[in-house]
Amino acid sequence: MSVKVIVLGTGAMGSGMAKMILEKEGMEIAGVYASRAAKHGKDIGEVLELDKKLGIKVSNDLDEVLGQEADIVIQATTSFTKEAFPQIEKAIKAGKNVISIAEEMSYPGIGNPELADNMNKLALENNVTVLGTGINPGFVLDSLIIMLTGACQNVTKIKAARINDLSPFGATVMKTQGVGTTVEEFSRGIEEGNIVGHIGFPESITLIAEALGWELDEITQTREPIISKTYRETPHVKVEPGMVAGCKHIGYGFKNGEAIITLEHPQQIHPGLENVKTGDYIWIEGTPNINMAIKPEIPGGIGTIATAVNMIPHVINAAPGLVSMKDLPVPRAILGDVQKLINKR
Amino acid sequence: MSVKVIVLGTGAMGSGMAKMILEKEGMEIAGVYASRAAKHGKDIGEVLELDKKLGIKVSNDLDEVLGQEADIVIQATTSFTKEAFPQIEKAIKAGKNVISIAEEMSYPGIGNPELADNMNKLALENNVTVLGTGINPGFVLDSLIIMLTGACQNVTKIKAARINDLSPFGATVMKTQGVGTTVEEFSRGIEEGNIVGHIGFPESITLIAEALGWELDEITQTREPIISKTYRETPHVKVEPGMVAGCKHIGYGFKNGEAIITLEHPQQIHPGLENVKTGDYIWIEGTPNINMAIKPEIPGGIGTIATAVNMIPHVINAAPGLVSMKDLPVPRAILGDVQKLINKR
Repeated sequence: MSVKVIVLGTGAMGSGMAKMILEKEGMEIAGVYASRAAKHGKDIGEVLELDKKLGIKVSNDLDEVLGQEADIVIQATTSFTKEAFPQIEKAIKAGKNVISIAEEMSYPGIGNPELADNMNKLALENNVTVLGTGINPGFVLDSLIIMLTGACQNVTKIKAARINDLSPFGATVMKTQGVGTTVEEFSRGIEEGNIVGHIGFPESITLIAEALGWELDEITQTREPIISKTYRETPHVKVEPGMVAGCKHIGYGFKNGEAIITLEHPQQIHPGLENVKTGDYIWIEGTPNINMAIKPEIPGGIGTIATAVNMIPHVINAAPGLVSMKDLPVPRAILGDVQKLINKR
Repeated sequence: MSVKVIVLGTGAMGSGMAKMILEKEGMEIAGVYASRAAKHGKDIGEVLELDKKLGIKVSNDLDEVLGQEADIVIQATTSFTKEAFPQIEKAIKAGKNVISIAEEMSYPGIGNPELADNMNKLALENNVTVLGTGINPGFVLDSLIIMLTGACQNVTKIKAARINDLSPFGATVMKTQGVGTTVEEFSRGIEEGNIVGHIGFPESITLIAEALGWELDEITQTREPIISKTYRETPHVKVEPGMVAGCKHIGYGFKNGEAIITLEHPQQIHPGLENVKTGDYIWIEGTPNINMAIKPEIPGGIGTIATAVNMIPHVINAAPGLVSMKDLPVPRAILGDVQKLINKR
């Protein structure tokens, strides 16, 4: 029997995951939820801009969608645990496993310990598993770092950077990253909470520390404007020299006054104009030292879609409860019949 | 209660693992087996060349060693499943979990399906888990590749290379890799089975294919001499120009006439003399493409010691049976109290 998936959200991520699911053997879509009334009642094929109708209608009635028979729910409707929780709660109570790409859900206990406890209890009661994942948090700046330390006898310090190009993104991302602002506007945006940078550093840092057995004293973050020396432009924003091309966001995990974990995520438009090479970089100081580079970086959108969908069999097979990427088997692409991967139903 | 480990073998790997275990909090050595009578009865501290005695004597009586109370046995006595099996069988029957660094044990089913079935049955009967691992096979050219595909929506082809420097190794490695032979001697050595190159390609290729759901038609291997253009020398061997500096060993996984998995492991002394840069390289062709490099390569000896010891908690916690790296949670360095990581005893 095919693995049945319910998709919550039909934005770029939700639609991308739905398309990926449709391409896989032994996996099918059991329902799609979209909050917008405009999409209600439309065939998924139409919403995904496919050539054909698939006979399943998008609904803005969450209870109706979750009432469908399904093995798992994939959530792509928010970045935040607080907003994710009510939907996840309903999915759990409907007896469904859950994968959320809400960044905070990669380790909800760090930002929302009560909701995390609640989710864990509900998941145990209903014999389902709940996981938060994505490319970052979820993969590059946490799981992959954890994996590489597996070849180390000892580790004294971890530094990693994910250097990407925001140019393909739309107006919302430009605003939340402060692209196109003056330095003063950037500072004000950070203070007022309109410019947020990356979401997920406390989560990634905690995942790493807990996996390795490090007890951190403090997690801190800094957000600095990337001030452009050159003129940069996208369809959504223009940046004159002296203006802000992006946000250099750094998260630190401290122990005994030293940052033993440093995760950098400078996000800007057209980094190549100032000879910044995009890539994912991990430096582990230990026995041995490990110096890893992925060039260019694993793309964020595709990577998040892939990471979430690829974890479906692992989550269905997992012991019940709220879990994180460090608890599950090594991630992998699912290229064969997904049904064959399921040993628990 | 501390996690108790029995170490089989006191060569470079066994001794290295014993030292690493002694450095970890919440883990202790319960016994050490060495086949050589010369080591029998000596204190481990002496055999490991530590400053102090530890009160545990090395024994060449396997049954006596396995009779000690312990959670797990680490085996570092052979590269081959056939030679590993009798010791593993005894360990399983003594109720111990097992980690073997025998290269073939990373996926014993490919070379010795009957022994693998047998081990799996015995492990299930005795409620213990058996894993084969190491830096390669076990980590660089299989688990890490599998991990990286986790961020891919689709994968069409995998190519990876582990380029290392054999210069630090002793006379035995020089012989098995053909270093210092003439081209004719190399060919004869390959034919006669004295020059073997890398052990583990069929195992790594099968691990990758099974993890991803690829059904391969055929696995093949080639071993070519790396003919030196320069004079190269180590304390154990001299290589004149025109002679063999090492073995370029390649493993292929074919499907429909195409090599969809290609793993290269050219091993030679002083690769830098001909501007060959050592490193671990993974190229995944898919959506997206992933281009990873670790420079220099993760060192083989330290990496094998670390990978095996770091997997101890995962193996103790795992469901019983014969397992492989693809079945267990993401590897990681164990830096805190190992006892806290054990949820099954």
